[in-house]
Amino acid sequence: MEVTRANFRHVLPELNEVIDKAAFVAIDCELTGISTENNIYPCDRPEDAYRKINENSSGYILIQLGLTAVRASDEDPEKYSYRSYNFYVFPRLWKQSFKCQGSSMTFLAENGFDFVKLFRDGIPYCNQQQERELRERLEEKQKARGHILNCSEKDTSNHVPVPEDEKETLANIRKLVDEFLSSETETEKIINDCNGFQRKLIYEMLESDYSDKITASSRVENSFKVLVIEKKKSAEEELTIEQERRRNEQIELEESIGISAVMQKISKSGKLIVGHNMLLDLMHILRQCFGPLPTCFKEFKQYAHCIFPNIVDTKYVCTLPDIKCKIRNSILAHLVQTVSEEPFTPIKLEPECEDSKYSLSENKAHEAGYDSFLTATAFLGLMGHLKILPQSLANNNDKTRSFVNKIFLMRLQDVCYINLVGLEPKTSRDHVFHVTVPEVWRQSDLVNHFRSYGPIFVTWINQSSALISLQHRENSSIVLKTIGSYPGFKVQSLADFEESLEKRLHVNEDSVNPRKRKLESLTTPSEATTSKLNKRTKKKRKEKKDKTKVFDEVDDWS
Amino acid sequence: MEVTRANFRHVLPELNEVIDKAAFVAIDCELTGISTENNIYPCDRPEDAYRKINENSSGYILIQLGLTAVRASDEDPEKYSYRSYNFYVFPRLWKQSFKCQGSSMTFLAENGFDFVKLFRDGIPYCNQQQERELRERLEEKQKARGHILNCSEKDTSNHVPVPEDEKETLANIRKLVDEFLSSETETEKIINDCNGFQRKLIYEMLESDYSDKITASSRVENSFKVLVIEKKKSAEEELTIEQERRRNEQIELEESIGISAVMQKISKSGKLIVGHNMLLDLMHILRQCFGPLPTCFKEFKQYAHCIFPNIVDTKYVCTLPDIKCKIRNSILAHLVQTVSEEPFTPIKLEPECEDSKYSLSENKAHEAGYDSFLTATAFLGLMGHLKILPQSLANNNDKTRSFVNKIFLMRLQDVCYINLVGLEPKTSRDHVFHVTVPEVWRQSDLVNHFRSYGPIFVTWINQSSALISLQHRENSSIVLKTIGSYPGFKVQSLADFEESLEKRLHVNEDSVNPRKRKLESLTTPSEATTSKLNKRTKKKRKEKKDKTKVFDEVDDWS
Repeated sequence: MEVTRANFRHVLPELNEVIDKAAFVAIDCELTGISTENNIYPCDRPEDAYRKINENSSGYILIQLGLTAVRASDEDPEKYSYRSYNFYVFPRLWKQSFKCQGSSMTFLAENGFDFVKLFRDGIPYCNQQQERELRERLEEKQKARGHILNCSEKDTSNHVPVPEDEKETLANIRKLVDEFLSSETETEKIINDCNGFQRKLIYEMLESDYSDKITASSRVENSFKVLVIEKKKSAEEELTIEQERRRNEQIELEESIGISAVMQKISKSGKLIVGHNMLLDLMHILRQCFGPLPTCFKEFKQYAHCIFPNIVDTKYVCTLPDIKCKIRNSILAHLVQTVSEEPFTPIKLEPECEDSKYSLSENKAHEAGYDSFLTATAFLGLMGHLKILPQSLANNNDKTRSFVNKIFLMRLQDVCYINLVGLEPKTSRDHVFHVTVPEVWRQSDLVNHFRSYGPIFVTWINQSSALISLQHRENSSIVLKTIGSYPGFKVQSLADFEESLEKRLHVNEDSVNPRKRKLESLTTPSEATTSKLNKRTKKKRKEKKDKTKVFDEVDDWS
Repeated sequence: MEVTRANFRHVLPELNEVIDKAAFVAIDCELTGISTENNIYPCDRPEDAYRKINENSSGYILIQLGLTAVRASDEDPEKYSYRSYNFYVFPRLWKQSFKCQGSSMTFLAENGFDFVKLFRDGIPYCNQQQERELRERLEEKQKARGHILNCSEKDTSNHVPVPEDEKETLANIRKLVDEFLSSETETEKIINDCNGFQRKLIYEMLESDYSDKITASSRVENSFKVLVIEKKKSAEEELTIEQERRRNEQIELEESIGISAVMQKISKSGKLIVGHNMLLDLMHILRQCFGPLPTCFKEFKQYAHCIFPNIVDTKYVCTLPDIKCKIRNSILAHLVQTVSEEPFTPIKLEPECEDSKYSLSENKAHEAGYDSFLTATAFLGLMGHLKILPQSLANNNDKTRSFVNKIFLMRLQDVCYINLVGLEPKTSRDHVFHVTVPEVWRQSDLVNHFRSYGPIFVTWINQSSALISLQHRENSSIVLKTIGSYPGFKVQSLADFEESLEKRLHVNEDSVNPRKRKLESLTTPSEATTSKLNKRTKKKRKEKKDKTKVFDEVDDWS
C-alpha cells in the first residue's frame, strides 16, 4: 500500500495493529545518495568502516521507507501472511538543507520513483529531540496566544517608522478599513497588491489604531500573499475559534512527527527487524527518527541495540557456512530467486489483503515497499533452510540465533559484520603495510618489490602511497627486515603509519573542531585545498590501471 | 520550448542563431534551495551581503534555466519578437553531492515542476575547468586504448589471487569459453549470475589466458550486470569499431558540457542579459557554467563583468526615481501587470513561432522559461517608459545606461545594488551600534534606553546582543557620550565592534582554513557546536516578538 501525507493518518491505527501482531518486520529504504567518498579499504576494521560510513552518509536522507509486516498463521507456524507498505518520506517544510547525489536521483527516477509525489505529499519525520521541541513550541505558542487574548495592553515600541513615500498608501488603507468597519454586510476585506514591507507597515498601523476592532491575518490567493481583515469577534466566538485552532494544531503536530511515530512503535514493540545489507538503512532510520548517531563505535552499537533489540541482516545470513555454499550471488533479487528453488524449502507467504500485496512477478525493484517484501521472502527462505522459526528468534537466546544483531559490512577483508551485542573478532593487520613510492612507480613496480613475500593486494591511497596486504600472512614478520631499499621507497607497518599520522594530527589539530580524522585526513584531502593533487592522483591511478588493462571494465566489488 | 537531453543536440544550432540575432536575452533560474541562513542585516554593505550570499547559496544548484531571446523587428525598432526556451538542467552522472531545501523542492513540485523529467533527462553542465579535464581525460583514454590495441605485452601483476572457493566457478567459466571458441555459430556468450568480485576474477583470467582470442565487456540486462564475451575481431574490424567509438565519445563529451555551451555562447556574443532580482541566478550560472566564485567582492565584480559585459536587473530598474513612483510592488508578476497598463506604453512583443511561445494568460509562474518571458516583457515595458531602445544598451556609453550592470540587492537599507563596473556609494554606518544587553531585556527596554535619539531599528543577533540603527542619523555622534549605563548593558560603534571581533578572530584563527568570517562567526554559530545556544536564542527571539505581537504575521520584507 502506498502511504503519503494524504492517507497517513488514516493508515496509522491499522499499522499499529499490524506491528503488534507481526512475527517480524522487514524494511528497506531509498536514499538521496550514498557516499561521495570511496575510502573504505579492505584492511579496515569494523570500527574504521563505521566511522567512515557515518561521515560519508551524513547529510543524505531517506525518502522512501518500505515495510513488510509478516504474521505467522495460527494454524500452521510455517505459514505466513504479510502486509506491505511503501511510505514516501520528505521534510517538506524544512528550511535546512539536505544532500543529494545526481546519480542516485537519476537511478531512482529511471526506476519509476515518483518525485512529485515525494516532494508534495511525503510524510515528514523528526527525531526525538525535534519532537520535544515541537511540543514545547506549540505549548508556548498557545500560552502566548492566551496571554494576548486576555491582554489589552499595547506595545508598539518595535514598530518601524513609516517612510515618507509610504504615508499615502497607509492613508488609503486607513480609509478602506474605516469603510469596512462602517459597512454591515462585509464580513472580510482583502488588501492585495502590497509588498512585504507595506504589509508590515499595515499590520503595525492596525495594531496601534484598530486592535480593539479588527483582526488581521494573511493568506495566499492566486500565488500572492494578501492581507485579510476581519471584524473582531465576541469573547465566546473567539473561544470557539481557539478550541478549533488547538485541535488543528494537535493534528499538525502529529503530522510533523510523521513516520517517526511508526518507527517508535516498532522500537517499543521489540519486534524482530529484518533488512538486506541494511547498515545504511539502519543508520538513516536512527538519525531521522531517533537522534544523531554517536561518533564512537561502541556507543553506536549500544544505541542501535537499545532502539531495535532484534535485528537480522539477510546479507550477513548469506555468509554463514551452511548458506554461503548454496548462494552464488547475494544481491537481493538473485537471493530471492535462489531461495525459491531447490534445495531450499518452499516459502509459504500469502498477502493478507489486496491493497497491501506485491507479486514476485512484477518488476518493482528499488521501490522500498517491494524490496522490503523481497527481503521478507528471502528471510523466510533462509530461515526455512536453517530450520528456524522467525517468530522464535526475538525471544530466544539459544545458539540458533548467533546471526541475530550482526549487520553486514561491505568491502572488508577479515570481519564482514558489526556485532551489535558483542565484540567482533580481533583481527591482526600485521600483514598490511603502508608504502610511500616514487611518483613514477606503477603497480608492477610494487609487485616486483614484494615478490618474495607472495601475492599482494594493493590499495592505492594517492599517487605516491598505497596499502599493501600480503596474501601469505605468515611472511608478515620478515618484510620490514628484508625488503630492499630504493630512493623514495619507504615501507612501514600499518600500526607505525597510523601512529605517526596520529602524532602529526595532534600537532596540527584544529582546536575548533576537535574530532580526529585518522587515515583519511591525509588520504582523502578536501576538495577545496587539493583539487590539483586529486587531479594528478586520478590521472596517475588511471595510468596505473590502463597500463595493465586489456578488458573494458573492472567492477566495483559490490 | 521545453529542452531536455532528448532534444538538446537538435536545438543547439537553432539556439546559436537565435542568440546571434537577439537584441537581448532574458533569463530566469529555478534552484534546489536558497539559503538556510537569514544573516543579511539591513545595515550590511554590498560587500558584506555578497560574502554572505555566496556562502549561503553555495552547494545548491540550478535545475531549470529559462531563456527568452528577444529580437527587434527590422521594420519597426519598437516592435519585438521572441523565442522562449525552458531547459531542464541536471548533473545526472554526478557522484558528488549537492544541497536541497525541502521547502524549495515542495514549492517547485506544487507549482508543477516535473522532477522525473529533471532527474532522467536533465541536461548536464560543467564549468570551464571541468570541461578541460573532460577533454584531457578523453584524449588520454583514447591514447591508452590505442596503446593497448597495438601492444601484445601482458601485465598481470595487479591481478587478485584467486581464493580457494572461487576456483570451481572459474574452471566452469573456462570450460564455457573453450566451448564458445570452438563453436562456429555463436557470436557472443553471456555470463550472468556473478557478483562483482567474480566478474573481476573472470576478467583477469580472460586477460591472462585468452587476450589474443577474446574481448570481454559488460552490459546491463534486466537490471543486472552481465559479462559479454566476443571473439577477437580482425585489425580492420577493430579500426572501424574504434572510429565509431570515437564519434560516440565526441557526442558524449558535448553532451557532458551541455547547458554550459549555451551560456558560453551568450558570453561570447556579449549580448545584453536581463534578469529580475537576478543576483542568485547570476551566481549559480557563473558557478555551474564557468567556475567557482571569488570570495573577494571586487574580484567577483570583475569576473562577472568579464563573462557577461552587459547586464540589466529589472528589479534594480524599478528603484530608479522615474519608475519607483509608478510601481507599487516589484514582484515579477505584479510588475508585468503594472507595465501592461497606463501610464506605460503598450508593449509590442510577438512570438516567432508556435513551439517557443508563452502567453501572459497562462499561469506557468515559477517555470523558468515562463519567468524569463515575463522578465523580457517587464524589461520592454520599463524601457518603453524610459524611452530607451534595448538594442542600443549593449553598445552605448551614454547616461541612459546608468542602470546597466547594477544588480539588485535585497534587504539592504542604504545601497540596494551591486555595481559591477564601479564602486557603490560609500555609506556611513556611524548611526549603527552594537549593543550587549542582559538576557532578560526585551525590545521595549532597548527602545527605552535609546528614546532620546529618536526611533530605532533593532536587528537581534542573539539573546543578548543586537544591532541598533538610528532613524535620525544626526544623533549618531552623541549616543556614546550620553547614553546611560546599566549593569550588563554595553554600547559600541559598529566599527569598534567589528575591530574587536577581528582581533579575537586573529587570535583564534584556524590555520587550516584561513578564510576569515567576520560578523557571522559570532552571530551565526555552527549548528553542531551551539544547537543549545541557538535553541535558547530562538526561544528568546520568539518571546521578544510575542510580547508585542497582536496580529498573526510579521512578513519577511521580500
